[in-house]
Amino acid sequence: MNDSNHNHDELHKGTPQTGNRLLADVSLPAAVIHEPALAHNLAWMQRFCDAHGARLAPHGKTTMCPELFQRQLAAGAWGITLATAVQCRAAFRHGVNRLLMANQLVGEANMAIVAGLLEAGADFYCVVDSIANVEQLARYFTARGLRLKVLIELGVPGGRCGCRDTDEVMALAERIDSEQSLVLSGLEGYEGVVHGSDPERAVRAYAWQLVEAAQGLVRDALFETSQPLITASGSAWYDMIAGVFHEAHLGKQFVPVLRPGCYVVHDHGIYRQAQREVLARRPELERGLKPALEVYAQVVSLPEPGLAVIGMGKRDIGHDQLPEPLRRYREGDERQRPLPVEGWQLTKLMDQHAFITLPPDEGEAGAANGRTRVGDIVAFGVSHPCLTFDKWRRICRVDERLEVIEVMQTCF
Amino acid sequence: MNDSNHNHDELHKGTPQTGNRLLADVSLPAAVIHEPALAHNLAWMQRFCDAHGARLAPHGKTTMCPELFQRQLAAGAWGITLATAVQCRAAFRHGVNRLLMANQLVGEANMAIVAGLLEAGADFYCVVDSIANVEQLARYFTARGLRLKVLIELGVPGGRCGCRDTDEVMALAERIDSEQSLVLSGLEGYEGVVHGSDPERAVRAYAWQLVEAAQGLVRDALFETSQPLITASGSAWYDMIAGVFHEAHLGKQFVPVLRPGCYVVHDHGIYRQAQREVLARRPELERGLKPALEVYAQVVSLPEPGLAVIGMGKRDIGHDQLPEPLRRYREGDERQRPLPVEGWQLTKLMDQHAFITLPPDEGEAGAANGRTRVGDIVAFGVSHPCLTFDKWRRICRVDERLEVIEVMQTCF
Repeated sequence: MNDSNHNHDELHKGTPQTGNRLLADVSLPAAVIHEPALAHNLAWMQRFCDAHGARLAPHGKTTMCPELFQRQLAAGAWGITLATAVQCRAAFRHGVNRLLMANQLVGEANMAIVAGLLEAGADFYCVVDSIANVEQLARYFTARGLRLKVLIELGVPGGRCGCRDTDEVMALAERIDSEQSLVLSGLEGYEGVVHGSDPERAVRAYAWQLVEAAQGLVRDALFETSQPLITASGSAWYDMIAGVFHEAHLGKQFVPVLRPGCYVVHDHGIYRQAQREVLARRPELERGLKPALEVYAQVVSLPEPGLAVIGMGKRDIGHDQLPEPLRRYREGDERQRPLPVEGWQLTKLMDQHAFITLPPDEGEAGAANGRTRVGDIVAFGVSHPCLTFDKWRRICRVDERLEVIEVMQTCF
Repeated sequence: MNDSNHNHDELHKGTPQTGNRLLADVSLPAAVIHEPALAHNLAWMQRFCDAHGARLAPHGKTTMCPELFQRQLAAGAWGITLATAVQCRAAFRHGVNRLLMANQLVGEANMAIVAGLLEAGADFYCVVDSIANVEQLARYFTARGLRLKVLIELGVPGGRCGCRDTDEVMALAERIDSEQSLVLSGLEGYEGVVHGSDPERAVRAYAWQLVEAAQGLVRDALFETSQPLITASGSAWYDMIAGVFHEAHLGKQFVPVLRPGCYVVHDHGIYRQAQREVLARRPELERGLKPALEVYAQVVSLPEPGLAVIGMGKRDIGHDQLPEPLRRYREGDERQRPLPVEGWQLTKLMDQHAFITLPPDEGEAGAANGRTRVGDIVAFGVSHPCLTFDKWRRICRVDERLEVIEVMQTCF
């Protein structure tokens, strides 16, 4: 039994592998993506962008999963959006050539990363919103003998980054125009930080403000490209941004780019709610996104009546909303019959544990074999994807039979 | 300038390397451990345990950093505590032989991982708290022809896992006694989930309950080892647990094991507060733990008066309490003069951004060159360590001059 020839293999048991059965062979907790929902979402959002004459540059920071970047590009995406220079480098190393860094490029070490990408042939864009940053970038990229494509960020008062009005945008554009090493290539915004008593109206007004600022830059011949980018949109208001860009017939003068990220796996929390609002605003849209990402974990203890402790915590799953118990399985059940979780309530997450309050009649009303047992496997819905993906180095992509099709790596 | 021979090197610029200057060469945001504080904490806690006649098995889940495990073992630790089978495998692969899994071992894939560790020679312990789990483990390890060392977990009503009273402990011990494949090797508890109107008193009572239950198991000859383990303690109440174990003269009959994890880097939040309470209870203890872990990030935008946006978010730092701005540096300043952050208030974290409210007189009272600029580097204090370490694959260990001594890997 202690045959040392087995040691190497044994050490690797429990690491998910293609062909593994999720409910029997995979060490839990595990992050799981359901292929049918994933494929649906990839096609759905690409179709949405195509129908609105916009390009899709999905925000890759959500997943940082090169296999998903490739799926997004294969489905028709124009490029991948990223949040940092390090993320851009990771995506480029995995074959993504067009990189839209939707943030400011600050710090010489980060500029050095981007200079390396440019020299290696990347088609890279980043945003600027201050004279100070323009000067820093110009100094660095001049010294490197490189030209950097930048987009001006237009923000909103009380928001996050970005120029606060069109005058600032114009002044910054003129400053960029004076720098040989910088190429003004578009205008960028993010409507996710627009607030107000009527957010729909505020987002729409902001989208129009973006359009008008971009048209102003064209009028003053400040773009150094024949078809500049105009880009905005996270995963909550993409319909509003796409709608305004479409109404404004931007496709002739600009390359309109949408950047939702969470759509690819959707969720059971804040983006499910956001998507309901999208569909309420746009009832003509066909049936919307499907949640594809779940975390599977096991009941590790039933220490007192009404309490189940799960081997899953804040280190395994996003918790801007508490995870939602969706289904339960008996470990090893070949028939994979889902058992009920009605009345289950996740009440608390610790680092490595979740607390479930079970309904008072748990196991009494139902058949005896439906009663919760130590070892039962529970599928949890997630909110939100970005803060779930970053908990995992490996994610199991599974088919309808819950067999692992692919073990996807993340590169956070 | 586009010399392709440079491409490979350029692609790696900005990845921290030994010898890099933190404030000039390292891509930010970055997680940083200060060697002097780290060395202090390693020695301090080992000395504390030695003085109380207890062994130290630091909770490795905090850092999941093999270099830190080795430092802890070199400082005198008896073994490393871990939370999951996957964590145990990672630690074992990095040379940790004695593994205390302070949780239930549930699921055949996880059992397979542990069986592999046992076959490879690991000295492994895990906890049990239910007949159901005992039966599952006995079935699995009998089939594998292996013997598994288990500790019974004693919990508290309304707590997390664990038997709810001594009767349950005794009944479970008898069940384990009947299983040839299981070796009852100790008693385990975790006082961090003990609550009450007088938590100090409740923790003390719980520690004594552990002692009495362990002595009961000895009396009934239910341990299958001459010197069973008795173990408890997280990073907040270790003084109380150590105190009771010491008063009870456990060192003769038992191996008392303490399991704090966060002490190794301490923090600027919940554990700083907990440590103040330790020192209030035990004023004779020499000067306590020092915060060693910080996250460094840059000001990326100053979009309106009173607001600085930092390139650091929930994906970079724990946020059970908001991070605390500690110091500021001007990028590239050879003198590394700290600039003031008085009156700075971190008000909000998004996934990749932090919002700082600056004091109204920012830059007016002070010298002009002290005014906050885009690119300024800010050091942030952390709460708590577990949920900061897990955001990073690489952590910079730095010396007093803020030079990178070592780039430490984590293995989450």
